[in-house]
Amino acid sequence: VLAEDGERALQYGPPFAPLQATIARLMQSRGADVSPDQVFLVTGAQQGLHVAARLLMDFDSAAVVDEFVFTGVRQAFGGPDRTLVEVKWDPTHGLDSRSFESAVSAAPTPRAAVVIPEFHNPLGASLSEDARRAVLDAASRAGVPIIEDDPYGLLSFDRPPRAPLLAAAPDRVLYLGSFSKIIAPSLRLGWIVAPEALIDRLRVLKESVDLECSAFTQRTTALYMEEFGLESHLVRVRAEYRIRRDAMLAALEADMPTGTRFSRPEGGMFVWVELPEGLDTLRLLAEAVKVGVAFVPGGAFASGPSPRTMRLNFSNADPGTIAEGIGRLGQLVAGQPLPS
Amino acid sequence: VLAEDGERALQYGPPFAPLQATIARLMQSRGADVSPDQVFLVTGAQQGLHVAARLLMDFDSAAVVDEFVFTGVRQAFGGPDRTLVEVKWDPTHGLDSRSFESAVSAAPTPRAAVVIPEFHNPLGASLSEDARRAVLDAASRAGVPIIEDDPYGLLSFDRPPRAPLLAAAPDRVLYLGSFSKIIAPSLRLGWIVAPEALIDRLRVLKESVDLECSAFTQRTTALYMEEFGLESHLVRVRAEYRIRRDAMLAALEADMPTGTRFSRPEGGMFVWVELPEGLDTLRLLAEAVKVGVAFVPGGAFASGPSPRTMRLNFSNADPGTIAEGIGRLGQLVAGQPLPS
Repeated sequence: VLAEDGERALQYGPPFAPLQATIARLMQSRGADVSPDQVFLVTGAQQGLHVAARLLMDFDSAAVVDEFVFTGVRQAFGGPDRTLVEVKWDPTHGLDSRSFESAVSAAPTPRAAVVIPEFHNPLGASLSEDARRAVLDAASRAGVPIIEDDPYGLLSFDRPPRAPLLAAAPDRVLYLGSFSKIIAPSLRLGWIVAPEALIDRLRVLKESVDLECSAFTQRTTALYMEEFGLESHLVRVRAEYRIRRDAMLAALEADMPTGTRFSRPEGGMFVWVELPEGLDTLRLLAEAVKVGVAFVPGGAFASGPSPRTMRLNFSNADPGTIAEGIGRLGQLVAGQPLPS
Repeated sequence: VLAEDGERALQYGPPFAPLQATIARLMQSRGADVSPDQVFLVTGAQQGLHVAARLLMDFDSAAVVDEFVFTGVRQAFGGPDRTLVEVKWDPTHGLDSRSFESAVSAAPTPRAAVVIPEFHNPLGASLSEDARRAVLDAASRAGVPIIEDDPYGLLSFDRPPRAPLLAAAPDRVLYLGSFSKIIAPSLRLGWIVAPEALIDRLRVLKESVDLECSAFTQRTTALYMEEFGLESHLVRVRAEYRIRRDAMLAALEADMPTGTRFSRPEGGMFVWVELPEGLDTLRLLAEAVKVGVAFVPGGAFASGPSPRTMRLNFSNADPGTIAEGIGRLGQLVAGQPLPS
């Protein structure tokens, strides 16, 4: 990149048009009719959430979020005078459609509904076809824009990646994509797909946050995809993550006590686990780290306590390590003594 | 960087400690007693402004800013329900101390005063010793924290870089530094120096904006400074920018009509020009771009009209181009016909 056009790669500059075009094609390949001018680059999808919240919310607005959701959503859409209306989780449909409908219909009308339709963080769940329809219909009836957070949608192991909600409702969905989970987190590069009429307002909002995305990173990412192809990389990543997911699900099945429930993600990076009554994952974590196992207690994703739940990550360890880790966790949960 | 530790350079991770240590040494070399734990990395100094504003301001707070200041300050500290109390410019002292004192003493008490002590954008001015003392005293008496925005402080041509205001008041100054103007804008990397007690709150605020700074960029920047040394680079940059500044001041002296006033910056990138009565830089710009000359009309930096003023940049063109450009501008201003 530096050899090709070092001066522009190191300077301030407008968005790198070839990258916008590549992202538009990526979206088109998933059935969303996106033009390059609708692609607004951000410093990762978290910045997409932040900028979307600043676009849509006042200091005292309400937004709809999942009852369990990664902290970044609560940070971007919450605030001392704001209200977060929560949607209940449903293990079969990814979310409880009635709960979603009631949330978007709350008074005062929420300014946005954050939906993670594929391979949810932390739930590992994907919306069923029924839930997707219900979400689009309810949000449309209530006049609430959808923020579709989709960093994991391309990490689909058991089926082709689904069309984003954006494809069905391009005027009512702000779509957030990210290279963090499909190329590398340290690119700090993601994108918003928005109606063209909103792009100028997004630009002003992003300018106030960090001016613009790195020209060097934009060009590096575009060249990487041009030279090596994103799809061949994704084929490898999906195959490897699938093996790791299978290892984790098999180990959970084998090693966790009766009464444990867990999601069976078709992609992404996370499994959500609910332990039997009486267990406390916060206390469990303190014991687990002593034997080299870490996870995130479910309460970190909720507005209230959630003592029996936890999020496990399967993408960042090999299958043997996963099996060993879940085995140790199972022994702790069962209250059995661990080999020292 | 990738060869050394590619995995960590591409992943999420904590701040890169060697970079924090290098920045702390850089601050120490300017007389500020800064520990690495006080160095908080941000995605450029603009993000420093944004995060500082979120730390200190509510939706309806007031802040003190210069009457002429680059848009990023107004964007970060302004807002529909916020008040920006303006400080008058003084060409000799960099700002009018009485105006600053009256601004920080306004009711309700401003939550922050943004000060650019060195090579101001857009004024090109630096605070005199008297003005520095007056600013520190008045802010201290009023109990208003100072946001010291200092992206240009190391680009000092005629004297050694001054100690930042931070050095005199480490508990009452949030200092913002940046690599954009001393290495490259596309690094998107800057830093806040803050009291250690505030670092955790800054971390939570930054997480909500874009999680963290790129691990790759942090390591690249640290390695660049370790291998090549920032100072030898700065020596070259200062020498070249000094030549360009001198070319611009000489051309302004020679080619602009009597009654034109301009700042004589001792560093940085900008000269502030005030044309004689009756001229309008917005109309001038429309003519100037036709003959290949661009500048920013002063009104872009003010809350009200400022028809006679403009900001010129001298860092981004060679001396011959600068002389030619100012010559053309002088002809336009004088209303003389241009050679076609």
